[in-house]
Amino acid sequence: MIEKLIQGIKKTGAPIVVGLDPMLSYIPEHITQKAFAEYGETLEGAGEAIWQYNKGIVDAVCDLVPAVKPQIAMYEQFGIEGLKAFARTVSYCKEKGLVVIGDVKRGDIGSTSEAYAVGHLGKVQVGSKSYYGFDEDFATVNPYLGSDGIKPFIKVCKEEKKGLFILVKTSNPSSGEFQDRLIDGRPLYELVGEQVAKWGEELMGDTYSYIGAVVGATYPEMGKVLREIMPKSFILVPGYGAQGGKGADLVHFFNKDGLGAIVNSSRGIIAAYKQEKYASFGSENYADASRQAVLDMREDIASALAGR
Amino acid sequence: MIEKLIQGIKKTGAPIVVGLDPMLSYIPEHITQKAFAEYGETLEGAGEAIWQYNKGIVDAVCDLVPAVKPQIAMYEQFGIEGLKAFARTVSYCKEKGLVVIGDVKRGDIGSTSEAYAVGHLGKVQVGSKSYYGFDEDFATVNPYLGSDGIKPFIKVCKEEKKGLFILVKTSNPSSGEFQDRLIDGRPLYELVGEQVAKWGEELMGDTYSYIGAVVGATYPEMGKVLREIMPKSFILVPGYGAQGGKGADLVHFFNKDGLGAIVNSSRGIIAAYKQEKYASFGSENYADASRQAVLDMREDIASALAGR
Repeated sequence: MIEKLIQGIKKTGAPIVVGLDPMLSYIPEHITQKAFAEYGETLEGAGEAIWQYNKGIVDAVCDLVPAVKPQIAMYEQFGIEGLKAFARTVSYCKEKGLVVIGDVKRGDIGSTSEAYAVGHLGKVQVGSKSYYGFDEDFATVNPYLGSDGIKPFIKVCKEEKKGLFILVKTSNPSSGEFQDRLIDGRPLYELVGEQVAKWGEELMGDTYSYIGAVVGATYPEMGKVLREIMPKSFILVPGYGAQGGKGADLVHFFNKDGLGAIVNSSRGIIAAYKQEKYASFGSENYADASRQAVLDMREDIASALAGR
Repeated sequence: MIEKLIQGIKKTGAPIVVGLDPMLSYIPEHITQKAFAEYGETLEGAGEAIWQYNKGIVDAVCDLVPAVKPQIAMYEQFGIEGLKAFARTVSYCKEKGLVVIGDVKRGDIGSTSEAYAVGHLGKVQVGSKSYYGFDEDFATVNPYLGSDGIKPFIKVCKEEKKGLFILVKTSNPSSGEFQDRLIDGRPLYELVGEQVAKWGEELMGDTYSYIGAVVGATYPEMGKVLREIMPKSFILVPGYGAQGGKGADLVHFFNKDGLGAIVNSSRGIIAAYKQEKYASFGSENYADASRQAVLDMREDIASALAGR
């Protein structure tokens, strides 16, 4: 799956992942009104609105980007009906040829991590039959529990040729509270990064590992160090756009081959029509606004990389 | 909700939480066969088997314990159908008067943690209406992202009078890989414990905070230190029984008032009938075996506490 991601980046020229993190407040009224007319102001109605909104965006951008990253929390908040919209979105994006990174940030002790791995990346056994659960291509994973929380995910990734992005340095303001604390003179995130590189050796693709890392665009200097610590790990970079990360901040996350990083933008793309810059599209054409935002982001990253 | 938990512990004399972490291999054949006869060897069939198995155990132990802790991964592995069994289990346990600790180990950046908090503990807004999602009483949370990943959970807990157990020192063998690393001469888990105590001050019950911690029974010496660092936080203690923790190991997790800890056992209770000790019950009477295992665990903890 890392090969498919790399091929997609090369083909589109866009090391971009679209964060499908729908909030009801982002969804244009014509979509919510139609969904509520059919299902009422219910969880089912919310699920339908989210799905229709996602579908519009995916249809508009699927030829421009290699990957999407649905954030499961945004669906899970609507309970079962929200998770149905998540499953439907994952499935549709895969049909469209996109790599799907399930932003699930799971992680637990061994046997429990195995269940999460099975549910999101693998197949579960039921009697003599087996079934895929949510069936994403990659999942994000939390490392706080150490190797025996991660290994079961790697095992399933080996079986399924799928991959992980392990949290190393997150994009949020308080990420430093624990992640930046010094251990033998070096911040915790560096030690986690070293482990990611080691875990990654267990499951190599042609040039990059199936086991990648999450490092926030909001911390470019740390990204530079982590790029060197994990030379063969792809870095999933959240925090571009709405959270404050800029194109120029991103250059450190890429290797000299122009690969090694994929940058996420969520609100900046999916709710682009709400920005002054794209307001002229109007809410009816929200998906066209998303398409333009992807084109602009591609340009921003390309010129930053050309200028380094 | 912390008051309800404390009242339940006092009433039952059992600082015990039953971990409802069903694996299909634990479920007696008469239950799986019936479920598969009705729904086939499908995800729906698995969900039905899990639900019937849980119901049997809950009915058998609900007068003996104050709380249950369903581990969501064990349901999530079966996709939507598994999560329906999770929701049904949560709801049924609450009907039976039990406190439900959702072992979900979620945690993300601010706005995303808010969505998880809403989905598991609070209400989500859909147009002019609002709905509970999974509606547990407590949730377990991962601290790796720092305060702004935790605060949205605390906000929802304040609104709903619900609580959290934040991962501090987990029970698994490799938990020390990051959690034990020394920062200014002190292990990371102590710093996390200090933060839990601080976060807990924001939401106090009468004597204990609504914000507790997870500390594994497998590390009793660390439990002793953490008990002092977080005097007003309840400690959820996994790792008893199948993972190796013994009654005598548990005394350090309790305060002198005999409170402050609640000990989880999952496999040791729910699959008790598979142990030699309880084999005479037979698989048909698996729930009676679970009941006996709870009684034995209560005795084990009580004598350990009496002997200190």
